[in-house]
Amino acid sequence: MTNVAISLLSGGLDSTIVTSYALKYANDLTAITFDYGQSHGREINSAQNITSLLNVKHKLIELPFFKQSAWYSALTNPDTFPISKSTQDREIGKKIPLTYVPLRNTIFLSIAAGLLESIILKKIEIGKSDITDITASIYLGPNIVDFSGYPDCKPEFFSQISETIRMGSKLGTQYGIEIQIQTPLLHMSKSEIVRLGMELESPISSTWSCYIGKELPCHLCESCQLRARGFSEAGIADPSL
Amino acid sequence: MTNVAISLLSGGLDSTIVTSYALKYANDLTAITFDYGQSHGREINSAQNITSLLNVKHKLIELPFFKQSAWYSALTNPDTFPISKSTQDREIGKKIPLTYVPLRNTIFLSIAAGLLESIILKKIEIGKSDITDITASIYLGPNIVDFSGYPDCKPEFFSQISETIRMGSKLGTQYGIEIQIQTPLLHMSKSEIVRLGMELESPISSTWSCYIGKELPCHLCESCQLRARGFSEAGIADPSL
Repeated sequence: MTNVAISLLSGGLDSTIVTSYALKYANDLTAITFDYGQSHGREINSAQNITSLLNVKHKLIELPFFKQSAWYSALTNPDTFPISKSTQDREIGKKIPLTYVPLRNTIFLSIAAGLLESIILKKIEIGKSDITDITASIYLGPNIVDFSGYPDCKPEFFSQISETIRMGSKLGTQYGIEIQIQTPLLHMSKSEIVRLGMELESPISSTWSCYIGKELPCHLCESCQLRARGFSEAGIADPSL
Repeated sequence: MTNVAISLLSGGLDSTIVTSYALKYANDLTAITFDYGQSHGREINSAQNITSLLNVKHKLIELPFFKQSAWYSALTNPDTFPISKSTQDREIGKKIPLTYVPLRNTIFLSIAAGLLESIILKKIEIGKSDITDITASIYLGPNIVDFSGYPDCKPEFFSQISETIRMGSKLGTQYGIEIQIQTPLLHMSKSEIVRLGMELESPISSTWSCYIGKELPCHLCESCQLRARGFSEAGIADPSL
């Protein structure tokens, strides 16, 4: 069997470990990075270094529309996100964090699936590959232990969109190939993720987690703190420091 | 009730009529046009003219990744689509046409839903609108009479993705607002669509259907012929000629 796969690689810790994980199971892996105006754009350089180190094909996909002020998110449009302190306070008690980006995973998975379908259709329709020999997977690193609030990070969401992709594609309806959405970190704690990364010899030293995106990590933002706690609980020194 | 809506406007006949239709039902309508390297890019100018004539807000959303050769489609990458005449002949008997673009409607609807969610979250979280007063709709013009082959134009696909969007969004899960996907032309013949357009006084004379995309329509491509047949069967002269 040929497992043709895509991994969603932001350049952060979790997605890098997922890409190392995917390399164990995929015969033909492409890592993709979305440039969608995330405030921690420093991650994109990390993603490029990581794919060089892992010797994995890499595609950068630009999604300029996310940066437009029309998109309502504190993550992609921090300057234009006109939210007052009192609104933030009200927000904290709610389930979905302010860093929620409307339909982000739905959009990311749809595009990843379209690219994966393109790669496989070329193999079948031009390369004359045998369809009974092909499996298809998308690997990504959401985690519900630390980020339970996002609606598009829940297991039932991934099952649902997997069926949507099957029904909406030539791959699913004409060739009967279902894209498997693989989320190996979903139920792991940060320290378990760190241990898995060390075990897989993932290039952790090249990853970037800080939301602030200066020369060095700030060690203060939520993402830096979560990372530090993960390494500390795993009893391992962060190789990026 | 305030019906906040988006219409998917390519600048062709069907999507223009759908936008006129949406105007009847929406209180706050934004038409969006995707620039995804469709060979008939001439449509984009038409879309801009149409929204001026209709006095509707318009957003152009650029999706450069569709134009990359990685995307396997005769529509977006005609030059790099390495398909031989004999392959085309084999393809004709199959259900899904060569002009199928991997996951196009899944991607388009996800992005449209994310923009619609952004517009509504701003109303609720900044404008303090009452959520019980808001409905949300996306209007688009697929048609299965003439294009029965595309998997992402079937009624069951639209129900499926509608639920995916609900489950993956803050709008659906936190505020209980479901985005209704409206496809009023789905079961109409081309002549019925033409008649509806005349009835709605839709700016048909500004639409563009030709796949070839020169100064004037070619009158030879599938899209030109389908349009001509629609007007002829409706007994109406095409106002764009």
